[in-house]
Amino acid sequence: MNSSIKDQIEQFKQRYQNRGRLLVSCPDQPGIVSAISQFLFSYDANIIESSQYSINPEGGVFFIRIEFECPFLKEKENEMAEQFTEIAAKFSMDWRLTPVYKVKKTAIFVSKELHCLLELLWEWQSGDLMTDIALVISNHQAARDVVEGLNIPFYYIPANKEIRDQVEEKQLHLLEEFDIDVIVLARYMQILTPKFVAANPQKIINIHHSFLPAFIGARPYERAYERGVKLIGATAHFVTNDLDEGPIIEQDIARVDHRSEVDTLKKMGRSIERSVLARAVKWQLEDRIIVHQNKTIVF
Amino acid sequence: MNSSIKDQIEQFKQRYQNRGRLLVSCPDQPGIVSAISQFLFSYDANIIESSQYSINPEGGVFFIRIEFECPFLKEKENEMAEQFTEIAAKFSMDWRLTPVYKVKKTAIFVSKELHCLLELLWEWQSGDLMTDIALVISNHQAARDVVEGLNIPFYYIPANKEIRDQVEEKQLHLLEEFDIDVIVLARYMQILTPKFVAANPQKIINIHHSFLPAFIGARPYERAYERGVKLIGATAHFVTNDLDEGPIIEQDIARVDHRSEVDTLKKMGRSIERSVLARAVKWQLEDRIIVHQNKTIVF
Amino acid sequence: MNSSIKDQIEQFKQRYQNRGRLLVSCPDQPGIVSAISQFLFSYDANIIESSQYSINPEGGVFFIRIEFECPFLKEKENEMAEQFTEIAAKFSMDWRLTPVYKVKKTAIFVSKELHCLLELLWEWQSGDLMTDIALVISNHQAARDVVEGLNIPFYYIPANKEIRDQVEEKQLHLLEEFDIDVIVLARYMQILTPKFVAANPQKIINIHHSFLPAFIGARPYERAYERGVKLIGATAHFVTNDLDEGPIIEQDIARVDHRSEVDTLKKMGRSIERSVLARAVKWQLEDRIIVHQNKTIVF
Amino acid sequence: MNSSIKDQIEQFKQRYQNRGRLLVSCPDQPGIVSAISQFLFSYDANIIESSQYSINPEGGVFFIRIEFECPFLKEKENEMAEQFTEIAAKFSMDWRLTPVYKVKKTAIFVSKELHCLLELLWEWQSGDLMTDIALVISNHQAARDVVEGLNIPFYYIPANKEIRDQVEEKQLHLLEEFDIDVIVLARYMQILTPKFVAANPQKIINIHHSFLPAFIGARPYERAYERGVKLIGATAHFVTNDLDEGPIIEQDIARVDHRSEVDTLKKMGRSIERSVLARAVKWQLEDRIIVHQNKTIVF
Repeated sequence: MNSSIKDQIEQFKQRYQNRGRLLVSCPDQPGIVSAISQFLFSYDANIIESSQYSINPEGGVFFIRIEFECPFLKEKENEMAEQFTEIAAKFSMDWRLTPVYKVKKTAIFVSKELHCLLELLWEWQSGDLMTDIALVISNHQAARDVVEGLNIPFYYIPANKEIRDQVEEKQLHLLEEFDIDVIVLARYMQILTPKFVAANPQKIINIHHSFLPAFIGARPYERAYERGVKLIGATAHFVTNDLDEGPIIEQDIARVDHRSEVDTLKKMGRSIERSVLARAVKWQLEDRIIVHQNKTIVF
Repeated sequence: MNSSIKDQIEQFKQRYQNRGRLLVSCPDQPGIVSAISQFLFSYDANIIESSQYSINPEGGVFFIRIEFECPFLKEKENEMAEQFTEIAAKFSMDWRLTPVYKVKKTAIFVSKELHCLLELLWEWQSGDLMTDIALVISNHQAARDVVEGLNIPFYYIPANKEIRDQVEEKQLHLLEEFDIDVIVLARYMQILTPKFVAANPQKIINIHHSFLPAFIGARPYERAYERGVKLIGATAHFVTNDLDEGPIIEQDIARVDHRSEVDTLKKMGRSIERSVLARAVKWQLEDRIIVHQNKTIVF
Repeated sequence: MNSSIKDQIEQFKQRYQNRGRLLVSCPDQPGIVSAISQFLFSYDANIIESSQYSINPEGGVFFIRIEFECPFLKEKENEMAEQFTEIAAKFSMDWRLTPVYKVKKTAIFVSKELHCLLELLWEWQSGDLMTDIALVISNHQAARDVVEGLNIPFYYIPANKEIRDQVEEKQLHLLEEFDIDVIVLARYMQILTPKFVAANPQKIINIHHSFLPAFIGARPYERAYERGVKLIGATAHFVTNDLDEGPIIEQDIARVDHRSEVDTLKKMGRSIERSVLARAVKWQLEDRIIVHQNKTIVF
Repeated sequence: MNSSIKDQIEQFKQRYQNRGRLLVSCPDQPGIVSAISQFLFSYDANIIESSQYSINPEGGVFFIRIEFECPFLKEKENEMAEQFTEIAAKFSMDWRLTPVYKVKKTAIFVSKELHCLLELLWEWQSGDLMTDIALVISNHQAARDVVEGLNIPFYYIPANKEIRDQVEEKQLHLLEEFDIDVIVLARYMQILTPKFVAANPQKIINIHHSFLPAFIGARPYERAYERGVKLIGATAHFVTNDLDEGPIIEQDIARVDHRSEVDTLKKMGRSIERSVLARAVKWQLEDRIIVHQNKTIVF
């Protein structure tokens, strides 16, 4: 990593040393917010941001994300987590408590088309994606120069259908070695096996170059052109075993017209893909996404 | 029709008595624009607006739409049309020459949900849709009051699968009787037979309440909700025999999030449907649309 | 009011008889959310929706809006309000507790251009604006038919600079008589005196037909045309004594180009004005807006 | 320049060796299109794209942009230009005939904030801005590495009010030396003298970080924050002697809310500035812009 980015990360860690995030989902009932906020208050924590949502308020599911500032968080966090299990048990909560200073580690997978990777690196350098980009994995050499220019380890792992298992073994090994939290498929263009997906639940974000569920699968821009649509789009989603069927995180579109040939669609699409993927990754890094069934709640 | 709308139409006819539109498609080659513009100049016509487009400039297809002002158009239009056949033959043109003062006659088909109908009537009353709304046909009584309140003939024709043929016979009869140019399905919700469609080629505009080709068919908002999309949309298209597969004229979308339940999607969707359909109808009334294969060129 | 709208309102009151909203602003400090949520829990209230925001979390200002469902709210609401004063005093809160079943009363002021009024009536009839439109006041007769057609009292009060004081006296009298909560200037086009404004603090919503602070004052579309802008807009804001300087609630824009003449800008602008104003009014009716200094927080 | 970009430019020149553009403005009258299209046809030119516009069709001003493919353009272009003067004289035309293979030379001025420069370089490397970026001039060293890394000459010319004349002399000298067609102020942040502006009429494109005419002048994001706007924007315009008052080429906006602090506005604004400036520069390079009085016609 470049020293200026290292500095940025260090400053961030310092500035947010007492900042924590609590994400909870549980059956809805009165008293949840009261219990959580009393708990936080008992640790002198100040709630900075709080978002909640209920599916069918009566007898449904409750979700909350709280960002708080808590003096001496580092000293308290283990105790807090331990104590919170009681509340969690009482309300049957799924939950996670993440200290913000523990900057997440990201791996980016890329193929030959670099626009999504470049956008992520750009946002990262300007401090808009707070993460440690630990490594880039590619089945092509195209990204090597730019990645290594930023002092990020680059792993060239040629890939194709026939050697999928070996390739993924190497990749899984690297992900473990680097202790990766977030995996971004920045137009990686290779299908992942159920084994790989199962090993990384709700960790893999993919960018699909269409407005899902339109144009699932290959060659979406060509098919959009043939269908004569007046808008094209892109979709960032978590990867599950069903191709392009995982929980959608973000989508966006751009207006096109009869003059827009396939090349123009691709060019415009690249710009949408870049921003849609960057937003999805940013939200994941900020613990803003809860997956419920096959949907996302983005706080 | 209300007298104020009648006045509007009369004023329009007067103001644009010398305005004509020429739409042409033909194999591309040098000299087309030159031939057409010389032709118009020979009738003292001044080109007011002109848009053109070529698919594959070399050896492809050429499209042009010209709006012109021609003194004494009414006296000249028959001769112009006759004379133009020579040029048309030379360049193998498909073409039409429409005097703007011949205001098009529109039939609106509607069911129980009135938002699209109301939008069209609204835009029509404010002078934004220049047409003679000759009649409204519905399989429900819901629209009667508002339609008859504007002195537009309202025909209640109950419809269902079993009696489709009889129903369409009545409808076709009315369309002929009123000499209809444009048929708008403003959420009519009944499937048309190939016979009906064949009798009205490129005349029927439908609004589909999804971003096609996503969610073709029934219950698109429910399915959008289940899929967890972050944008919903609507599509105006010409009706062909393949359900929701006709040439797309216009599409638009709105942003939704996890809080948006099916009812919210429908509510937001209604607003998109209204504006998308109104734009498509407007373009058709202004002769801005050329259908080429299964796509539209909108000038 | 039409009976169908009356029915809608009655159903709404029934459905939300136990729904309340609590809006609070106060100096930020730890413990606020805990105190509020414990308070609500002590009345068996379930928090349905909650949004909060802090300006400068440390030592700044804290804002929260909570929507809750509380069994037997009608029986409890007075006691709740009374009891809450203690918490309010402790944290120096500005606050309001509004039961949702107390449907707000709205007065609409309009002049000759009816598009904003019509949009509000439309949204109101489709159940999207939950309010009792108690009366419409106008300095022209143009709106009379449509307003009275919906059984809403219509007051024709001619207005001009010279008789401003008398006019406003009549208007204030009507507002008091009808016990009005929200005043909407739906393109009313008359300037209000400081006296009128002072009598209705944060109650008057105006739609300005430009993207403020661009084109403050008269003839914004003409001036937008002359300046050659590529986007036009509209702004809904609370009325204060400084013309077009009050807290902005909502804004939106549309893309235009060199072809767009003043008339086109006005036509497109009408559509933006309609939706921007409707959104602002809806948020006000749902108690989503807190004014802080000269800005709005919209939850 | 990098060799890969050099290759791109060479391929472009080769591919469009016979492509020309004709831009005309003149008093409107019948026969203009006919005369121009006959002229082009007489050189065997095929019209590929054509856009026109009239202000006040009767007795107003007529504008047209034609892109054509003409075999052996290089051999014919001088004769064509010479012959066209006759038509131009007859219709009192302002006009220019530009062969597409003559790739325009661009100078970019930049200060410390690099996002606009980086976007232009990015689009340029991906082939979306067809130009020869001949040099970058800056009053800071911040851009040196990235510019020189692409083998583009970088000139560091410190600047401030006191030495404005000397600074501009150096700059003008460089512009002349490099035979520059387009000057882009990519957040240059220095005011130019009337002398500099007069020497480069309709050649200088600036990006202003607000939605003009709102927030003319300094610190627009701070002022947008203070005013509490709900949308922020950016504007690309030609530079004239009146600060931020030149003809607007393009504008865009993004939605913000009460949570958006000044830093967020700046961050979001950077993204709008990037795309707005890139579009404006692209249009200028493609000869799509005609300036008429203080407005642009963008074809």
